[in-house]
Amino acid sequence: MSTWPDVPADHPFGPANLPYGAFVTEDAPSARLGVRIGDQVLDLAAAVRTQGLDDGTVWAAALLEPTLNRLLELGHTAWAGARTWITGLFSDPAKADAVRPHLIDLDRVELVLPFRPADYVDFYASEHHATNVGSIFRPDQAALTPNWKHLPIGYHGRSSTLVVSGTDVVRPSGQRKPKDAEVPTFGPSQRLDIEAELGFLVGGPTPVGSRVSVDDAEQHLFGVMLFNDWSARDIQAWEYVPLGPFLGKSFASSVGAWVVPMDALSAARIDLPAQDPEPMEYLRGDGSGLFGLDIEMEVRLNGTLVARPPYAEMYWSPAQMLAHMTVNGAALSAADVFASGTISGDEKGERGSFLELSWSGQEPITLEDGSERSFLEDGDTVTITGWAPGPDGSRIGLGEVTGTITPAIGLD
Amino acid sequence: MSTWPDVPADHPFGPANLPYGAFVTEDAPSARLGVRIGDQVLDLAAAVRTQGLDDGTVWAAALLEPTLNRLLELGHTAWAGARTWITGLFSDPAKADAVRPHLIDLDRVELVLPFRPADYVDFYASEHHATNVGSIFRPDQAALTPNWKHLPIGYHGRSSTLVVSGTDVVRPSGQRKPKDAEVPTFGPSQRLDIEAELGFLVGGPTPVGSRVSVDDAEQHLFGVMLFNDWSARDIQAWEYVPLGPFLGKSFASSVGAWVVPMDALSAARIDLPAQDPEPMEYLRGDGSGLFGLDIEMEVRLNGTLVARPPYAEMYWSPAQMLAHMTVNGAALSAADVFASGTISGDEKGERGSFLELSWSGQEPITLEDGSERSFLEDGDTVTITGWAPGPDGSRIGLGEVTGTITPAIGLD
Repeated sequence: MSTWPDVPADHPFGPANLPYGAFVTEDAPSARLGVRIGDQVLDLAAAVRTQGLDDGTVWAAALLEPTLNRLLELGHTAWAGARTWITGLFSDPAKADAVRPHLIDLDRVELVLPFRPADYVDFYASEHHATNVGSIFRPDQAALTPNWKHLPIGYHGRSSTLVVSGTDVVRPSGQRKPKDAEVPTFGPSQRLDIEAELGFLVGGPTPVGSRVSVDDAEQHLFGVMLFNDWSARDIQAWEYVPLGPFLGKSFASSVGAWVVPMDALSAARIDLPAQDPEPMEYLRGDGSGLFGLDIEMEVRLNGTLVARPPYAEMYWSPAQMLAHMTVNGAALSAADVFASGTISGDEKGERGSFLELSWSGQEPITLEDGSERSFLEDGDTVTITGWAPGPDGSRIGLGEVTGTITPAIGLD
Repeated sequence: MSTWPDVPADHPFGPANLPYGAFVTEDAPSARLGVRIGDQVLDLAAAVRTQGLDDGTVWAAALLEPTLNRLLELGHTAWAGARTWITGLFSDPAKADAVRPHLIDLDRVELVLPFRPADYVDFYASEHHATNVGSIFRPDQAALTPNWKHLPIGYHGRSSTLVVSGTDVVRPSGQRKPKDAEVPTFGPSQRLDIEAELGFLVGGPTPVGSRVSVDDAEQHLFGVMLFNDWSARDIQAWEYVPLGPFLGKSFASSVGAWVVPMDALSAARIDLPAQDPEPMEYLRGDGSGLFGLDIEMEVRLNGTLVARPPYAEMYWSPAQMLAHMTVNGAALSAADVFASGTISGDEKGERGSFLELSWSGQEPITLEDGSERSFLEDGDTVTITGWAPGPDGSRIGLGEVTGTITPAIGLD
């Protein structure tokens, strides 16, 4: 695809990607939607006005909003319309003079969360991760719980603590009970961890009491973003029986600033790993929802590459997760977010959490500066990057999700 | 307190109560905030305009909104200001002529959810309930998990499926695996249950990375409402290990239409049951947050009184729940909702779920029409009512939360 913005053919944010984000600038501190091309962001509201769409097309009006929420309400046809129009802006040389003034260099913007999250659900869709965690947390039982291969296990998380990439993460405090202690103690988490995940941004609403089938799920999948579900393993281990993780997770989850549209990931579609036993009918449908995504990720701690989690190995498909989430009649809202759960591959270097990488602290990792880590220290910065195959040998960048640990706050 | 609206002294919605709600009428289908007195609702926006407050006072502007969210953002001082003003409207005979035209009979309004929920957390704060459920679900282990008396166990639920009292509840379908079955099956829940709870409506926001102390928690507690956390026990039992309840709960939670301000519950404050072991410092503070609430409830199934859950016996206080929820730095938002968990007393007739009342189906309940129930059938209506002591021997009504079960929908 030829475009007038001068973007190298191998750039991860070329014309086949065009992810959405939101930004502010020093001159204009109100959030605006943008789309990234190369190392610039197009101010979408300005582009809409330039093209005279601001009094007509429904999706164009949605691009004038400070978040994607209105666009997410409009549904798949509107999403396709907006994407076609944006692609056309960059491919038509006649539009260059009008549009170019609204391209802003990335180093001149601050990226903000491009949606107001509704409900947030975290899944547990990596067989390798679930097996590793089960082995560590419940060594006396089978690593995978009996339900694991029958349904995509998930739980609700705290949507108000989704933060954009780059936001510092305050080390959480809470209760934890070492195995050899008689009573729990209170203090800053000593086992602060990451979970390298893929997040999905969902369009809605759907009515309470209805369900979205696995075949129709794609109509509600807007796009993906890198996701880091920070986890305090000591808090989690003490609190999570019987109702699941709560404070060990709810202090922060970091979201990549760029939402890559599902339409940009056509070349990344691959078969799922074999599912055995065969899932129930509501998780199979006509088979069109049973696709994987060949997304590669890299996790760096203070610059040292520590893991390459392979999304291609995830057991459950995003369409299966969405169908499961609504099979009981639960409503979807615009800007619902669900995340895949930690992505771990078969190999040690493919594990998406330090719990697994250090095998619960028994096998610390050595960084390039010679220091060792089992879990995160104050001042540590974790950066996850990701990309997928694009059309014609190109790459679709997912950008990065990064965050730095700051010290725990004291009790008041 | 004398008022010009003619409300009997023993009316549960007398001048010491004044709960907030939201309503629509046939003539005016846009939601408006109201406050209940007797069997009427005052149109608050109309009252604000009548009194000429609509271009000044901040909380008055919030009363013009369709939900309580703006008022919840303003904080405790604004809440007190609004309540004082509303109380004055009804106690000052000079205001009667101006205000009376804006009182609407309840049978002329449809009540709607008076807030846009942010995050929703469900606790598990009844020792009797946790003990009963533990005995039923995990008969081979101690009934209370080791963490139960150290922290208020809670988990996030689905905020988009909070529905106002009176909304029908579609029977959820899902996976369940009877104990003697080899593999799970799919279908409508056969163990559809209630959880009689008290819900708390929270004011905010607070910043990510900060915490609300147990002493300050009351500044964020706006009010209470009756709450029914419908639960599909068969779906829940199969899915909930290891990450907690998900689809067994997320199809619907019904919320009473009236939010009773905390300020109306002064006479209902009582001591908590003894907490042993002594909770950690962040759950004790100076002791001011360690209060219980003497709220009585009645649960009726198709008119038959089946239980009287006593909120007075709850182990953890609402201030402890709120302090725990934020001790890791999790942010609060305006219209966060948390619920107490099922309220069960020591006696069999005080249990707030059919799981406990029928002891997992082993001891069915006989209704007045002679029929038996262990769990809910299609067409069943469950109504929970509640009240608390008010000043000078009066009663503070919480109203009701009711819902009728409709048949499961088929797969598409």
